[in-house]
Amino acid sequence: MRVTDLFSKTSKQVPSDETSVNAKLLIRAGYVDKVAAGIYSYLPLGQSVINNISSIVREEMDAIGGQEITMPVLQPKANWEQTGRWKSFDVLFRVRGEAGEFALGPTHEEIVVPMAKHFVKSYGDLPKYVYQIQTKFRDEVRAKAGLLRGREFLMKDLYSFHATEADFEKYYEKAKVAYRNVFKRVGLNAIETRASGGTFSKYSDEYQVVCESGEDEIIYCPGGDFSENTEIATVKEGKQCDLGHGPLVRAKTIEVGNIFSLKDKYSSAFGLKYTDSDGKEKPVLMGCYGIGISRLMGAIVEVMHDERGIIWPRSVAPFDAHLVHIEDTGTEPWVKEIYKKLTEAGVAVLWDDRENVSAGEKFADADLIGIPVRLVVSKKVGKGKVEMKERDKETPRVFTVEDLIRELS
Amino acid sequence: MRVTDLFSKTSKQVPSDETSVNAKLLIRAGYVDKVAAGIYSYLPLGQSVINNISSIVREEMDAIGGQEITMPVLQPKANWEQTGRWKSFDVLFRVRGEAGEFALGPTHEEIVVPMAKHFVKSYGDLPKYVYQIQTKFRDEVRAKAGLLRGREFLMKDLYSFHATEADFEKYYEKAKVAYRNVFKRVGLNAIETRASGGTFSKYSDEYQVVCESGEDEIIYCPGGDFSENTEIATVKEGKQCDLGHGPLVRAKTIEVGNIFSLKDKYSSAFGLKYTDSDGKEKPVLMGCYGIGISRLMGAIVEVMHDERGIIWPRSVAPFDAHLVHIEDTGTEPWVKEIYKKLTEAGVAVLWDDRENVSAGEKFADADLIGIPVRLVVSKKVGKGKVEMKERDKETPRVFTVEDLIRELS
Repeated sequence: MRVTDLFSKTSKQVPSDETSVNAKLLIRAGYVDKVAAGIYSYLPLGQSVINNISSIVREEMDAIGGQEITMPVLQPKANWEQTGRWKSFDVLFRVRGEAGEFALGPTHEEIVVPMAKHFVKSYGDLPKYVYQIQTKFRDEVRAKAGLLRGREFLMKDLYSFHATEADFEKYYEKAKVAYRNVFKRVGLNAIETRASGGTFSKYSDEYQVVCESGEDEIIYCPGGDFSENTEIATVKEGKQCDLGHGPLVRAKTIEVGNIFSLKDKYSSAFGLKYTDSDGKEKPVLMGCYGIGISRLMGAIVEVMHDERGIIWPRSVAPFDAHLVHIEDTGTEPWVKEIYKKLTEAGVAVLWDDRENVSAGEKFADADLIGIPVRLVVSKKVGKGKVEMKERDKETPRVFTVEDLIRELS
Repeated sequence: MRVTDLFSKTSKQVPSDETSVNAKLLIRAGYVDKVAAGIYSYLPLGQSVINNISSIVREEMDAIGGQEITMPVLQPKANWEQTGRWKSFDVLFRVRGEAGEFALGPTHEEIVVPMAKHFVKSYGDLPKYVYQIQTKFRDEVRAKAGLLRGREFLMKDLYSFHATEADFEKYYEKAKVAYRNVFKRVGLNAIETRASGGTFSKYSDEYQVVCESGEDEIIYCPGGDFSENTEIATVKEGKQCDLGHGPLVRAKTIEVGNIFSLKDKYSSAFGLKYTDSDGKEKPVLMGCYGIGISRLMGAIVEVMHDERGIIWPRSVAPFDAHLVHIEDTGTEPWVKEIYKKLTEAGVAVLWDDRENVSAGEKFADADLIGIPVRLVVSKKVGKGKVEMKERDKETPRVFTVEDLIRELS
């Protein structure tokens, strides 16, 4: 895509009430547009990142048997009264309409369980796994952390249904592997952390990314074999790791995912039972597995940026490469030809085709937008040649287009 | 996918308040689950149809330069007061939260125009085109038409921004072509119909599908050169078509899309202007282009079904083929091998792998679900062979797996 066609532009200004690094950079670079505190529009660049993250999450959920569905935003009050959460859920948006009162879904147990009742009758119908990537709502008192805590945000939530505790536990371990894959693929080092299981289960597992701006806190072993949320921590920082990795570390973190057992809490509330092979009715056991898609985008920015801008991992970057021509070479036919050949070869290129903009300004914008591969064409580099510079490597290299296509494929 | 793994099941029952053909068939076949009147969950089969329709729409919008974005559901009251629609929009859901009052977006002019103000300054920034595929809300008094009129529904809305009327009109014609492509590709004969332009424009174009259960009415020439919504019709049914196609016909229809000029109605409300080459400030002209994605799904079912069930066009069907084994061949290794080979070749197969279910019941379910290609394996057809029957053709044909893969690719 040509920069002059792109809907957004970079900007030096951000709304005065934005204090988080992720919101400032994402707004300045043209990834999101602020609508209200905690409510953003995703511009073409941001939508592309969201789509890339979603594709990775989808692949990993499909790989563990997840079937994609979409449940509604509008959830009848009666469903939330059935679980007692109409009154107890403290950040619930409530809306009244022609058909009565509704919650704007902050989570979907109140919908998925009555739905499962239509299809789960016998032990032969279990296990089952469904997930959605869907907009969620929380009526937060404050929303000052950009994409880390939105009033409206995108989540992946998977729900699993099991006949036995053993079957649930087997799936829970599979989900852990899928979660590790997701975070690795989006370029995050997410620490699997033991946390509170809420009112209905002893423990849960959270995926925590070390970051000074995070709202969570963990105590963990840098060797990777131990991590606990400080809410439930049984050990103190500084204590030597049992396996000899040195002292445990306390750190601020961003929670990017969590998985936990729901036992029969929601299935019992709605009478979701199955008939076992012994002819007896038993409650269905459930697990719940969340990843904040838009929060993940914010977390990547918080962790991967420098003073000049964002540094996206290749797997989620909005384009494969950012092409900059300098020295007024933009009208040269061979420069257009380079863009055309790359695009036709399937390399997604953002070409800064602006005229009358200095090389310095173009490079500053490229730094801000943060596509990890930079391509420069100039008279100095030579006709038909492209200089490639990766953001995280020092030395640029010069390629012919054909060699570059091979390099980037 | 195996039927025994699929989250949904077919059913002989539908909620007693469902009267529409589309809701009855989609619920019975396991495409959607009813949450409340006009509010549905999309089950894996339904999600697949929605994804297929969305992909087609995305391709056609990308082809006319559309850039995908996502704007929020929660829209500040102030934006809606700016256009006067906070009070005048009669099916607006309004919700109060910690950050004030919000509309649940039934459309997005109130968001897209202030957003464009951040990026459109000069004539060089125009034209621009953005679209989203996003959940919309309308607080309908009645919602009895299944997916044809939802309280919560999925829409594609594209907004275009132009410097001149001539540029808008050029794009409007391109959009018409894209719209014709979309409806053709999803298997619908949508009649391009002249309709009212609302308060701000003389005309709009609607895409209408002839169907007795539709809420709209048109007068059209069966030869294809004329159609008007009866709300603005200038001619009477029965009048001879000027081009000799015989008498004009009056018909009930479902509106599946519309495109219209917004002129400067919303840009003026928000002060969206650009500086022209003559140095003067002028209002930006806009167009708006909608397709109801979930309504399209309902319309396809209304038009393409028989007394046994749905008949999906191949382009949107949830699977490429529905495989049924009969005569207790399900445990034969060669039957599993056929499923495996097809799947590995990229043919999306739904395999009814249930045991102890009669051939009649399996065929009835396949008819209800409506995947247009049926595959039967049995002792009679022969080991390693597959009988293929297309729903809209009379004669079945027998293939080896290898030949079948070639046939379906």
